[in-house]
Parts: sequence; structure tokens; C-alpha cells
Amino acid sequence: MAARAGIVVTGTEVLTGRVSDRNGPWLAEALRAEGVDVGSVVVVGDRPEDLRSALAFLAGSGVDLVITTGGLGPTADDLTAVVVGDFQGRPSAVDPALEARIGAIVARLSALRGWRMEPAATAAGVTKQAQVPVGATVLEPVGTAPGLVVPVAEGRSGPPVLVLPGPPSELQGMWPAALAAELVRTALAGATELRQETLRLWGTPESELAATLRRIDDQLRGLEVTTCLRDGELEIVTRYSPDAGPAYRLLQQAVTEDFGDMLFSQDGATVDEQVAAALAGRAWTVAVGESCTGGLLAARLTAAPGSSAWALGGVAAYANSAKEQLLDVSVEMLAASGAVSPEVALAMAQGARDRFGADVGVGVTGIAGPGGGTTGKPVGTVHLAAVGPDGTATKSVVLPGSRDAVRQRTTTLALHLLRGLLLGGPPA
Amino acid sequence: MAARAGIVVTGTEVLTGRVSDRNGPWLAEALRAEGVDVGSVVVVGDRPEDLRSALAFLAGSGVDLVITTGGLGPTADDLTAVVVGDFQGRPSAVDPALEARIGAIVARLSALRGWRMEPAATAAGVTKQAQVPVGATVLEPVGTAPGLVVPVAEGRSGPPVLVLPGPPSELQGMWPAALAAELVRTALAGATELRQETLRLWGTPESELAATLRRIDDQLRGLEVTTCLRDGELEIVTRYSPDAGPAYRLLQQAVTEDFGDMLFSQDGATVDEQVAAALAGRAWTVAVGESCTGGLLAARLTAAPGSSAWALGGVAAYANSAKEQLLDVSVEMLAASGAVSPEVALAMAQGARDRFGADVGVGVTGIAGPGGGTTGKPVGTVHLAAVGPDGTATKSVVLPGSRDAVRQRTTTLALHLLRGLLLGGPPA
Repeated sequence: MAARAGIVVTGTEVLTGRVSDRNGPWLAEALRAEGVDVGSVVVVGDRPEDLRSALAFLAGSGVDLVITTGGLGPTADDLTAVVVGDFQGRPSAVDPALEARIGAIVARLSALRGWRMEPAATAAGVTKQAQVPVGATVLEPVGTAPGLVVPVAEGRSGPPVLVLPGPPSELQGMWPAALAAELVRTALAGATELRQETLRLWGTPESELAATLRRIDDQLRGLEVTTCLRDGELEIVTRYSPDAGPAYRLLQQAVTEDFGDMLFSQDGATVDEQVAAALAGRAWTVAVGESCTGGLLAARLTAAPGSSAWALGGVAAYANSAKEQLLDVSVEMLAASGAVSPEVALAMAQGARDRFGADVGVGVTGIAGPGGGTTGKPVGTVHLAAVGPDGTATKSVVLPGSRDAVRQRTTTLALHLLRGLLLGGPPA
Repeated sequence: MAARAGIVVTGTEVLTGRVSDRNGPWLAEALRAEGVDVGSVVVVGDRPEDLRSALAFLAGSGVDLVITTGGLGPTADDLTAVVVGDFQGRPSAVDPALEARIGAIVARLSALRGWRMEPAATAAGVTKQAQVPVGATVLEPVGTAPGLVVPVAEGRSGPPVLVLPGPPSELQGMWPAALAAELVRTALAGATELRQETLRLWGTPESELAATLRRIDDQLRGLEVTTCLRDGELEIVTRYSPDAGPAYRLLQQAVTEDFGDMLFSQDGATVDEQVAAALAGRAWTVAVGESCTGGLLAARLTAAPGSSAWALGGVAAYANSAKEQLLDVSVEMLAASGAVSPEVALAMAQGARDRFGADVGVGVTGIAGPGGGTTGKPVGTVHLAAVGPDGTATKSVVLPGSRDAVRQRTTTLALHLLRGLLLGGPPA
């Protein structure tokens, strides 16, 4: 039986979606890498009673460790440390040495940022952040908030609670110290290796994959297979303990046989990573001319560190005048075919390639909606083209969904078109 | 006492962060608009036992309605309907009429998309999706999966469970029908109005706001105030029932007095919305020249429907050659000042303005990292400029955080610089 952990994410801003939670998933993945299984993540607002019931749910579910994120800031709605202390039967008190250390950090940060700080307000915030349940282990702040490992009070039973800060950089920075803490190491002593492998398919419906899985179902014992359709890509993630390795290889073989070159990734690499590697491998550069995606394609191509080696940039040519003046699409073509046409997509790809002096150019034009559609060119109509030294690839589709969905999915489609041009493989 | 609901989000892909959950936050906000309070969202993987314990936790927490999202697809790991049925004491069976309706939808969709479909596989998927707990109310599919309202079996007690599909467009499309369902209406009959107001601050640390809140703490009874720092913006969201209106107005007044023009939004409008309105109001257009943000600024300016009225586009000039050839930054300036310099940011803004023929140009150059930093120009160094008919605004900063954090925060900073140029107000 593998070690198990449960996660509580706190923050009304997360619960209501003003901020999307990055900590729950990050922790689930970091724990999996340690061989620790996570059954659930509970998101609660900044109310003590909701945090308490989440702690009670997870502690009562038999996990070896409960982890909380967030609620350690200087404002009064940040109440995780005290609520966790009370839950574990340990009242909180100010730790004067910790208070001095946090005070020094705050002074340094505010000097660095040039913020106006009222001394009394600052001191009150520091004191608040130095309130620690008695008997808890303090993890040194990465930002201004300390982490905590809070064991249950003597004479009571239950898992320890690891209290981590909400800002992802602070949480991630504190993680090695958290794993090294004696109480955490003891709690997770039962961890065993848990492998995770990812296959990625492009251009096939989920029901076809379901048929493959159903066919070999009785041979998949020991595998936890989940499938997920996103922006037209189908992702198969399998988790298993090492002794189920043969079953995983059988699954991989069945998917390979049934889907051929639709299986574009067997090692979990994303299409972004494959495009980057293919460009780097040939020492080719790329530039894009994009309309409906408005910069998303250029942003995605430049998202990875080191992308300046092969991404020269792009033109977001939203206005027709920009298509003419920055991508050399002719006025005549725009008038004859319309801005949303295969001809213009190709001209934008060629224009981007020429203007940036890139080896490969990509062009994207379409109607993201919700307005602007016509009977002949409904919302979701998208034309794409990629032009390289060895040839050209094009694609025209009508995509479903909201403006945002069309923009995101078009960006993924452009990457697959580019991948096809560079590597061959499944049609975009 | 307001009506309360609890939400279970299912899907290993969500639990492990491969997909970020959009349904939990959307539902929490949609329920709030109906006057229904949500205390927690539980995210579980595709394991029946984890879904069951989440259902037990929420049903046992005294909520009036439990809502699940996801797990209604055609693959075997999609098991929500059956698990919810069992939890409510209602075994599932295939509904033949529903099966026929889903079959017709699937046939139409696959013809439209030109997917190769094996008939037996398709039929098995359809049958699986037509499995319904006996006595449940069926909500017609928006995609291929039906929604369900599953009451607890007779003779047992507990809230009904509303089962909704995972794809956000399907879930949102089904929401009106779900709210109209008899069982849901009865469960939420106790809903009372719950207001939510948002204030946004720019350029002040969270501890200063904490001081203001502490000063008037005893006058804030009945308000649920949460604060959240994101990309340099400080957001204050307050939820309250109508009788706490005077307390909210007092909070608003205190924040206005203490923070002056750092309070850039009192009606919840985002900086994006304010920039859009300011441009539209003057019938001005904007174009951007961006380096380290690589297209993110153009993408954000074109994210809203109708943005083509004022956003002409942008150049993501990643390579120096692109800065020269597409934004007219001089070779001499690049050599003398370096690509990451206030001079180049201003030249990029002017170049974008001229090349696109826009009223306003924005220029952004910086080092997003993790590589490329030097002692004089560390990672996070960013220079920005905005040039309009009435003047120029510039800003230089060193931002903390990861490559992604620097790119996102720089994009927000550029919007505030643009807002300042258009509206005056707080310094970016």
C-alpha cells in the first residue's frame, strides 16, 4: 500500500476562479514523483469553518499526510496557521525569533521595491505571520511566510499537517525543505515507486480509443489509465507500479497498432517540444503571421527557455492594412478572396517567412467570433499554412466553441501543421 | 441561512494538473449569482472510491445540493453516473430512448468532422453514455453526454446530486436546464441575494491594505472580504447580503481615502476592459512591438470580442533583425544601448505606431530568463514605453519570478502603462 496524501487549497480567489489553482496540481505531481498517491484536492475559501471541515475530511480519509496551501499572508483573511494549529490541538503563539527574521525580510523587500510602508502596519503583518502552533516545525520563509509541519497533539491520533504558502514560487521553493522535515519523512516512509507514462494522439475521436481499451481491458490489470481530449489532442496517461510494466507495454503496443501515425508522442513530449526539437535539429528558424490568434501562436513558440535560438518572432496582423503592410498580402488578393481564405493564409506564411528571413513561415487567418461570421464563412472558419524550404502544408477547418476555444485550438492546430511539415507524420 | 451547494470535479487530468479546472470556479460563480453559497470544491481522479468519499463528505456537510462535473464520456474511466447512482441508492440501467437520441447526435457529429468511426465501438460508447440511475431526471445532451439530477433513494436522506458533463461548453450550455429542473429548484429554494463587489489596486503592497482593513475591522461586520495579489495587482473581493450594504460602502470609502489613485477600479472592471473602453471612447487604435512577452501583449489586447475595432495588431520581434526590419529600431541604437534598454523600448513603441498607422504604440523589451541575464541587466529587467498623440509614458523595472511569471507580469504592466497614458491615474 503506497503512502497517501490529501491536499487543501485555500483562498476565496481560487474557489471563485479569479485565480486558477496551480498548487494542487503541482503538489499532486511532485508527490507522485516521490511515490505518494493523492486521492483528492479540496479547494476552500477563506472561512475557518470550511477549512476545518476539509481538514477533518482528509485527516479522516486515512491519508498519511495532509498538506495545505495558502492563507499565510499578512492580512486578517489569511488564517491557515491558526486554524490548522487548533485542528491539531495546538494553540498558536508568536515566535519572537521568527518574527525578527520575517521583519528583516520585509524590510529588505520593501527597500528593494521602493514601496511606501507604514511601520505600524508592517509590524502588525510581521507579527501575524510569526504566529505558530506550539510544537510545530518551522520551515524558513522563501517569501515572507514560514511553512509549518504541525503534528497532532500528544494523546490524539491523526496525520501531521504540512502548511505551505500560496504563491507558487514560494511553495515550490520550500518543497525540498518540506520533504526533508523529519515528520514529513516519517509520514511518507511507505512511499513506493509509481510510474507515469503519457501517449498523445492527434486526429482521432475518444470513442475509437475507448474501443481499443475495451478490447484489451482484461490485460490492463494494475494500470490506471485516464484519457483526456483537449484542443483536439487526445492524451492517455497511465500510472502503474513497476510490476505492471509488461501490462503498460502491451497497452502501448495496442495503441501503436490501432492508431499508427496518429500516435504522435510515445514519451510524453508535447507538440511544442517536438516542434522546438525539430527546428533546433535542423538549425532552422520560424516566424509567424497570425490574425485570429492575435499573438497566441508567437507567444506559444516563445514560451520555452532558449526559444530565441529558433523563434524569430511574428506579426499579429489583426487589421487588413497590417496584412498588406507588414506581411505583403496584396490588396487584390484580400479583395478577391477575403481576409479569411486559404490564399491569404498562405500569403501570410510566405510574408512572415520573407520579412523575418526565417526558414519556415506559418500563416493563420480565421473568424474567432462571436461576431463576424457569415453563411459562407461561419464563426470558427480557420485557414492555416506552413511554408518551409522543402514544401508547404495547408489546412482549412471549421472549429466549434467559444472565441477563446477557437483561438486556443487554432494555435494547437498550427503547431501540428508545423510539426507535420518538419517531421511528416499525422495530417494536421 | 442561504442555500448551500458543494461541487465535485472529477478527472485525473484535472487532479494532476494536465488540465486546469474551469468548471469548479465557473459553477461557484454561477451559483453565487443565484444566491447559493459554495463552501468547497473537491477535485478527485477517476477512481470510484475517491468519488464516493467526496460525495459522502459533501452530502454529509449539510449542503442542499451536490454537483459533479466530468466523467460522462464514452470511455471506461468515465464512471460518474453509475457511482452517483449507487451512492444515492439508485442502480443504473440503459435508457433506450436516450440511447437512440445520443446515437443520432454521435452520427451527426462524426459525419460533420469526417472522423473514421468503427460502428461497434461507437455503439458501445453510446450505450455507456445512456446508462442512467433509475429515477433520475435526464438533462438533454449539449454535446453527447446527458446531465442528470439524481435524488436520494426513497427512505434515505441526503441532498440530490446534479451530474454535469466535463467539457466547459457543454456544462455551461446545460446550466439553464439544470437550474430549471424541479429537484434543483426545490433544493435551492432557500437562496437569498448575495452581492459581490470588486475593488482593484495597482502599485501597493498587501500589508498596507491589511493595515486599512485592520483599522476599520469592527465596522466590517457582515462582509466577507478577501484580498488577492496577482501580477502586481491587488484585488479586493467582498461578498455580503444586502443588509450589509452600509458596511461595504464604508469599506469602499476607507480604501478610496487610503489609496487614492492606486485604486484604479471600483466597479470590478479589469485594466483590460478600461483600456478597451478608453481606446473605443476616443476612437483610437493601438499596435504593439514586443520582445520578451513574445506575443502575449497582442494576444491579450485581442482577447475580447470586438477588439478588432481598436487593436490593429503587433510585432513579436524576438530577433534583433526583426526589431530593425519590422519596427525600424536602428542598428546603431541596438549596438549602443543593447536590445534591452529604455531607448529600444521607446523605439519599438514608435515603430509599431508608425508601421501599423496606429494612434498609440506600445513597446516592450526585457529578459524573461532563465538565461540571458548579466550583472548590469539581470533576469527580470524590463523596459516599457507607450507613445500616443498627447505624449509618452515609460517604465523600467526588475521583476522577480520564473520566465512565465516575468512574461505575464510584464504584460499586465504594459496594460497599466497604456491605461496611464490614456486615462491618467496611478503610475504604472
